[in-house]
Amino acid sequence: MARYLDEFTIGDTFESEPYAISREESLAFAKAYDPQPFHLDEEAAARSMFRSLASSGWHTAAITMRLIVDSGVLKETGIIGTGIDELRWLAPVKPGDTLRVRGEIVDTSPWPGSASRGTLRVKLATINADGVVVMTQFANLIVPQRPS
Amino acid sequence: MARYLDEFTIGDTFESEPYAISREESLAFAKAYDPQPFHLDEEAAARSMFRSLASSGWHTAAITMRLIVDSGVLKETGIIGTGIDELRWLAPVKPGDTLRVRGEIVDTSPWPGSASRGTLRVKLATINADGVVVMTQFANLIVPQRPS
Repeated sequence: MARYLDEFTIGDTFESEPYAISREESLAFAKAYDPQPFHLDEEAAARSMFRSLASSGWHTAAITMRLIVDSGVLKETGIIGTGIDELRWLAPVKPGDTLRVRGEIVDTSPWPGSASRGTLRVKLATINADGVVVMTQFANLIVPQRPS
Repeated sequence: MARYLDEFTIGDTFESEPYAISREESLAFAKAYDPQPFHLDEEAAARSMFRSLASSGWHTAAITMRLIVDSGVLKETGIIGTGIDELRWLAPVKPGDTLRVRGEIVDTSPWPGSASRGTLRVKLATINADGVVVMTQFANLIVPQRPS
C-alpha cells in the first residue's frame, strides 16, 4: 500500500531499528568507495584527526538510507529523493558502532501544477549507541498525492 | 605531500577518471543499502518512475567520493568532509553507465581563530558518458593551513 502526501503531518516522527557496523563491513565499504588511510589502516588512523579507525561518512549516509527503507515509514511508496540539504558529519563513526535514525517531517508541499505528486521534507538524525548524533540532514522525497 | 589551503584558488577545476558501474555492483550496493524494488528488480523498475533498473542515488554519491579520492586533487591531505549542501539527484543512473566527476573550487576560508585549518568549498558535478549531469553537490572539506 502506498502512503500519500496527505497522510504526513509536520512534526510526525519515526525511529529506525539499530544497525551494527562490523569492522569487516567498514573496511569493505572504504576500500570500494573511500580508500583513504584513516578508513583502512589502524596506524594511519591513530595519526589522523580521528585517532582510531573511522568509517567513511558516505558509509554512514548509506546505512542511514538502509535504516529508513527498513523502517517502513513510506510503506510501499518508493523512497525517491530529489536531493539532500545541509548534510553534516558531526562526530566520527567507528567500526563496532551501532547506529539508528530518527526522522521528523518538517514540510509537505504539493508540486505546483501537479495533482499527482508532492515533496516530503524530512529532518534526519543518525545517532550512535551513546546517543551522540553523528550525522544530520534534510531529505527531500517525492511522494504521490492521493488520486482524487 | 599535503596540499595546503593557500594552494587552492577560487575557480580552479579538476576532473576525475571515468568509473563504469557494473550490473553486479549496482545490485550489491542496493541490496546492502537501498533495497527497494526499482533498484533490484527489472519488472518493478519498469513500472517505476525510472522505467528500467536504476542504481541507488547513494551509490552515485559513494562512487563520486571514490573518484575524488583517486583524482589526487588533495594529494596526501585527507579528504575529510564536514558536510554537503544542496546535493541534487538530477537524472537516473543505470547499471552499465560510466560516471566521472568535475569539481570547481568555489570558496576557501580560514577558520576564525585557527591558524592550522580552513574550509575548502567545492562544487561537484557527476556526469554520465552522454554528458548528462546526474548529480550535483557542494562539499565542505577540512584542509590544513601552511605552517607559518
